[in-house]
Amino acid sequence: MTANGIAQLSLNQKTLNRYSLPAAVAECVRAGIPAMGLWREPVQQHGVTEAAELVRSNGLRVSSLCRGGFLTTDSPEERAAALRDNRLAIDEAAQLGAPCLVLVVGGLPNGSKDLAGARRRVVDTLAELAPYAERRGVRLALEALHPMYCADRAVLSTLEQALDIADPFPENQVGVVVDTFHVWWDPKLFEQIERAGSRIASFQVCDWLTPLPADVLLGRGMMGDGHIDFPPIREAVRRAGYTGDTEVEIFNDEVWATPADKVVDTMIERYLHLV
Amino acid sequence: MTANGIAQLSLNQKTLNRYSLPAAVAECVRAGIPAMGLWREPVQQHGVTEAAELVRSNGLRVSSLCRGGFLTTDSPEERAAALRDNRLAIDEAAQLGAPCLVLVVGGLPNGSKDLAGARRRVVDTLAELAPYAERRGVRLALEALHPMYCADRAVLSTLEQALDIADPFPENQVGVVVDTFHVWWDPKLFEQIERAGSRIASFQVCDWLTPLPADVLLGRGMMGDGHIDFPPIREAVRRAGYTGDTEVEIFNDEVWATPADKVVDTMIERYLHLV
Repeated sequence: MTANGIAQLSLNQKTLNRYSLPAAVAECVRAGIPAMGLWREPVQQHGVTEAAELVRSNGLRVSSLCRGGFLTTDSPEERAAALRDNRLAIDEAAQLGAPCLVLVVGGLPNGSKDLAGARRRVVDTLAELAPYAERRGVRLALEALHPMYCADRAVLSTLEQALDIADPFPENQVGVVVDTFHVWWDPKLFEQIERAGSRIASFQVCDWLTPLPADVLLGRGMMGDGHIDFPPIREAVRRAGYTGDTEVEIFNDEVWATPADKVVDTMIERYLHLV
Repeated sequence: MTANGIAQLSLNQKTLNRYSLPAAVAECVRAGIPAMGLWREPVQQHGVTEAAELVRSNGLRVSSLCRGGFLTTDSPEERAAALRDNRLAIDEAAQLGAPCLVLVVGGLPNGSKDLAGARRRVVDTLAELAPYAERRGVRLALEALHPMYCADRAVLSTLEQALDIADPFPENQVGVVVDTFHVWWDPKLFEQIERAGSRIASFQVCDWLTPLPADVLLGRGMMGDGHIDFPPIREAVRRAGYTGDTEVEIFNDEVWATPADKVVDTMIERYLHLV
């Protein structure tokens, strides 16, 4: 159990997927949750300026903005478009007061089997974005996704790989996400969390369920419903020096079908007892 | 394309899942495939002595026996039973002339979240089995399974972890499996294949499909149907010193519904052109 109650708990907006931004903000206020992880699409739908005003006027911190990335394309046109879109995402993060923009780097380009090439392009494209992000006061947060998404979502598959990519960049430009769902299985997890130190830009939690649901993108479960032992990971992240919020980010049809207040109350209870 | 045609191609029996051992043997003979990877259940069904006689009299090599393992239990009774069963599997491998017994180490025990503990027990149990296997002339082949199986099938998740576990054992006691499906995503794959050297006891191929099917155990595809670039992996395995067979092991409902001769002909063609 964390020492300070829910003072560092953040609700990732995706956990209340079918609710609007104002409804999610209202839920945080009702439950006393002090921070939110925001997603670009619902923020854009609400208007970025209005969204920034909404969270500020309700006294909420923004712990992260999800997400930029998709940097693996081998087409010059798509690459230029991706750079434009990521710069826009960085601007949005700055406007929202989000300390970091989470990057999901993208999978193999359509029809390509060149995994090494896709990984090289992530590094090259990141180098173009990082100075821009720094000028806006936004940190790029590389998110290693579970290896089962390597082909179609993110060729960045482990925390070690994320740190290898981040190494050449100043820490205030490029950090990493530790998301329990994606990294809990990794035999080198604790070694790499220690190595990460102040590179850790975001800490996200949810559980690993079995059997995986038919749509593996929706396998992220409420803490306690799966197999992950959270406290050792949370403690390692704190020991490494991370002082930010713990974001609960759940993609799950059942959770999404549940009323927001029930999801949030369960989330708080599980967070206090299991994380 | 491999230089020597199908002289080192092995049909893993699972690829023809709904066929009997004699039917699978007959297919190999028809198609000129010189080796088979066998599975314990159909071999036991046929009779181990009779199976050994059947493959030998048809001039086939046995490239591996699948599978022992399930070494993670925290119950003394289940552990004793697992040791008994693995010794039996080693005896069967010896009788069949299989150079190695593939080990799928097992997932978290029911209700347990102690991943580190499960991984420790794999090492402890392996230490009891390895000398027994050596006396029977059978090598134990640790198979790293894709991290998506960590909770429920195998807490052994990367080639690096398999090699770390194998390190203290003599090479003729404990080797490792390189299975493209399980390891293709790994950023350290080529480094670890080189490190593996003569620890490589088995090389298995099949493709990674997207989207993953509803039952993720059946996501293994025919080479060419998915995202894996085989030649660099095959070359790395050869460069590391592996001189054994390449086993094609496919778990896939569509492949299993296809007539054996069509599966085998496709497999040979894909092997010659893509592996």
